Amino acid sequence: MSVPMLVSRASEPHRPDTIVRVGEQVTFGGDSVVLIAGPCSVEGRAMLLDVAHRVRAAGATMLRGGAFKPRTSPYAFQGLGRRALELLAEAREATGLPVVTEVLDVRTLPLIVRHADLLQVGARNMQNFALLAELGRVKKPVLLKRGMSATVAELLMAAEYVMANGNGQVILCERGIRTFETATRNTLDIGAIPVLKRETHLPVIVDPSHSTGKNEYIESVSRAAIAAGADGLIIEVHPHPDEALSDGAQSLKPEAFAEAVGNIKRVAAAVGRK
Amino acid sequence: MSVPMLVSRASEPHRPDTIVRVGEQVTFGGDSVVLIAGPCSVEGRAMLLDVAHRVRAAGATMLRGGAFKPRTSPYAFQGLGRRALELLAEAREATGLPVVTEVLDVRTLPLIVRHADLLQVGARNMQNFALLAELGRVKKPVLLKRGMSATVAELLMAAEYVMANGNGQVILCERGIRTFETATRNTLDIGAIPVLKRETHLPVIVDPSHSTGKNEYIESVSRAAIAAGADGLIIEVHPHPDEALSDGAQSLKPEAFAEAVGNIKRVAAAVGRK
Amino acid sequence: MSVPMLVSRASEPHRPDTIVRVGEQVTFGGDSVVLIAGPCSVEGRAMLLDVAHRVRAAGATMLRGGAFKPRTSPYAFQGLGRRALELLAEAREATGLPVVTEVLDVRTLPLIVRHADLLQVGARNMQNFALLAELGRVKKPVLLKRGMSATVAELLMAAEYVMANGNGQVILCERGIRTFETATRNTLDIGAIPVLKRETHLPVIVDPSHSTGKNEYIESVSRAAIAAGADGLIIEVHPHPDEALSDGAQSLKPEAFAEAVGNIKRVAAAVGRK
Amino acid sequence: MSVPMLVSRASEPHRPDTIVRVGEQVTFGGDSVVLIAGPCSVEGRAMLLDVAHRVRAAGATMLRGGAFKPRTSPYAFQGLGRRALELLAEAREATGLPVVTEVLDVRTLPLIVRHADLLQVGARNMQNFALLAELGRVKKPVLLKRGMSATVAELLMAAEYVMANGNGQVILCERGIRTFETATRNTLDIGAIPVLKRETHLPVIVDPSHSTGKNEYIESVSRAAIAAGADGLIIEVHPHPDEALSDGAQSLKPEAFAEAVGNIKRVAAAVGRK
Repeated sequence: MSVPMLVSRASEPHRPDTIVRVGEQVTFGGDSVVLIAGPCSVEGRAMLLDVAHRVRAAGATMLRGGAFKPRTSPYAFQGLGRRALELLAEAREATGLPVVTEVLDVRTLPLIVRHADLLQVGARNMQNFALLAELGRVKKPVLLKRGMSATVAELLMAAEYVMANGNGQVILCERGIRTFETATRNTLDIGAIPVLKRETHLPVIVDPSHSTGKNEYIESVSRAAIAAGADGLIIEVHPHPDEALSDGAQSLKPEAFAEAVGNIKRVAAAVGRK
Repeated sequence: MSVPMLVSRASEPHRPDTIVRVGEQVTFGGDSVVLIAGPCSVEGRAMLLDVAHRVRAAGATMLRGGAFKPRTSPYAFQGLGRRALELLAEAREATGLPVVTEVLDVRTLPLIVRHADLLQVGARNMQNFALLAELGRVKKPVLLKRGMSATVAELLMAAEYVMANGNGQVILCERGIRTFETATRNTLDIGAIPVLKRETHLPVIVDPSHSTGKNEYIESVSRAAIAAGADGLIIEVHPHPDEALSDGAQSLKPEAFAEAVGNIKRVAAAVGRK
Repeated sequence: MSVPMLVSRASEPHRPDTIVRVGEQVTFGGDSVVLIAGPCSVEGRAMLLDVAHRVRAAGATMLRGGAFKPRTSPYAFQGLGRRALELLAEAREATGLPVVTEVLDVRTLPLIVRHADLLQVGARNMQNFALLAELGRVKKPVLLKRGMSATVAELLMAAEYVMANGNGQVILCERGIRTFETATRNTLDIGAIPVLKRETHLPVIVDPSHSTGKNEYIESVSRAAIAAGADGLIIEVHPHPDEALSDGAQSLKPEAFAEAVGNIKRVAAAVGRK
Repeated sequence: MSVPMLVSRASEPHRPDTIVRVGEQVTFGGDSVVLIAGPCSVEGRAMLLDVAHRVRAAGATMLRGGAFKPRTSPYAFQGLGRRALELLAEAREATGLPVVTEVLDVRTLPLIVRHADLLQVGARNMQNFALLAELGRVKKPVLLKRGMSATVAELLMAAEYVMANGNGQVILCERGIRTFETATRNTLDIGAIPVLKRETHLPVIVDPSHSTGKNEYIESVSRAAIAAGADGLIIEVHPHPDEALSDGAQSLKPEAFAEAVGNIKRVAAAVGRK
């Protein structure tokens, strides 16, 4: 590429890795591994607060929860919207965990910026260039998920849209790509982690929930992601996966999450992370 | 699926095929095959008018041209925007050809609705649900391109978003999917044409330019698409492909387009189309 | 590539297209389109002779039938073996149609060479290099099917193994590649036809049965294949698809085959073929 | 499936995991992680002995080396054949490391059985059913690599061919699947490890060399594989990767291998393996 890429290590070889700070205490890209956990969708107040307290107790350092949901069908649950954002803010107050939620539409971006600590771009919007450009103009960090058929090079170009518009606080997320294999929902591209670590100074996390689609495989690929060098994980946790309004099959129960965290931490220590 | 799908033949078995009318004289889904041609991007007035006249003379019945371009890199040519829309309207006046152009952003949708006859949703935005819902509320027909890793079922669900929001004038477009093969830019899923024709009453067209990525293969796959039952084609034509600001390698010169049209028409006649 | 490729047009630019003769009267690569039809597996004498007569009456010029079957499961029907070869030879006597059958094992190759007119290498064996080299040493033509995840370049290299070992009578077959789409069994790579026609002088045919996996789509993609420039088709036909020991869902009944042939011939005529 | 599968846990729920013994001291599927290392191809005596001693010193417990090579091009180096087998046997004598090499052809199988301790079926032959059946009749263990576009279910069915023919000593190997991503040679399907561990009692190892294709990514994905639960690794090591006759780009130098082993062992300990 002829234009120097802001995301690239090549543009400034001695540049240190970017550390993205979220809220007061969470940093992506440093020594610590960040564990984001929470329900796919915010379904109600009691459930959200319950999950938030339990994932915090288990070792999570951030809370996730969908307010505006990108659903394949127009008839599926689309999220609680503004109400979910308020509940996320309340859960942050109650637990101290910063919150991340997805942005679908430039028109609701200002509302989300007011409530969330980290702004997620989902896989389906990775090349929604209007949204990416707008996120370049806000003062909050961005979590950019890889599109399900996007190459690593395209993911970096999508991050470049955000950076070129003025926001350098970008975290990348590998969440599985679409392949012929159906034993898992998507195929986690574990090799993308060292590739990204070599190509860019931005932090990289992994979503084991969407990449496997089945809760019985989440812990195994979470350990693998950290062993490969990922800077964090974003895991769906739901108190009653069978009753979840979305993505139940790929959500861990809080107790299974707690158990997984212990094993993940041992792997993190083995690769020199906290 | 438990909800009756508006896009589906199953929801109303005796429903006739949907005919989508664009402008005064073009209809998708009837006996005639529609040929849309024009440059990837509108690059200037003289060039656009020249191409428009030449594709019309060769047999095209609609004009294409990008005003707002979704480019992988933020540093690539992003289109002439509003100026391009005005030029497209002028070209329509001059040639009588209705025009189609891509919508990237809900905020520029009203502007595009005023100028264009057919509103294109590109592959990267096939699951931009905010945009799809908004397109359901306008009075212009929509050309919905399949995402590069979207299944046929997901394409139909995306069309359902438009229909469920009130706009039944939707044309589907197969434009190649992403596979491991690199001899062509994408892999045209020719089997998707009979699958779509069986599953939905909506018209289906094919984009041989994006599916092959190389102008030497466009005529062959265009013939194949019509033989398979497609209702039309959308083909990139540029007077000087080597100098095109985007997608030159997959653009036909006007004279090659004219030659292809003759051969495509013979195939159309062989399958009972005009 | 530094070594001149025997399969390549580049190695000898003015070389005419290779015409492969099978039996007394069938030629691949000339003006005529070759229609190969017959059951997936040879299941018995009466059934094979019945199908052979009916596909011949419908316009087929060659007979297919599996004797040794490559089955994913070791417990599935593996073919009648030698008995099937004898029945194929009898069907050839009765109808005059040359026969093609698959070779799985170098050890049964001599037996198959004695009975069959055309030796098929299936998709799963496209890179069985020991088998390819042995086929280079026989005096019968070879039908080489593309592997389900093989690139066009790899298909050409596989053909090169046969040619480099002395047998220049090779016909290539596009039979669909493996992708994420599940509406069809495989994804027919229609663009591979013009790519192969440009790169090699060898004849190219298409297998619409394996590429779609569903009989309702076979005619549509058959028309497309011929329109794109294929030199022939290989189609599974079974008198009672529901009772077939293998691949019933993708087999046409003889009467549907006859109807398809009429439509395919019209397309062939439209592209200047017989 | 109606037939009880020998490879499946479901057929005998309380069956313990299969432990495959290779040579006198190596066991796959138990507490220890097995490290197989060595050159892609056996290129000569001095080189092989040198590598064998160095990988043993670094912690490898088995030696790999190709004698008969499956090469995409018929003009590429095809291996030293019988001579390579003799050198592998000599290297085993010298170092005590059991050896694994690939079988391409049923006709050379008896020769390989005499020299090797573990018989590898490569990705291109995963559905070479004649070869699989023959391997079911020998008394040596089999290393079965997943085909580059094979599903996990198909890999298990391929193993079933070996077991159904009488040989229960089968080790499975995930070596990357073919996807659209080109930053790595293949895409390591890390999720296949917990899937296989759940579905079958057979040991599972990973090939980080073929899955990444680039030596700079081998250590990272090796750590990931062990963290995910793999029972071993097979890694290409060459003293002079730039001069290797095959696969140089994905081979580690002995010193890099030694460094990687240390880090891999720390991860193994963190997941309770030796």
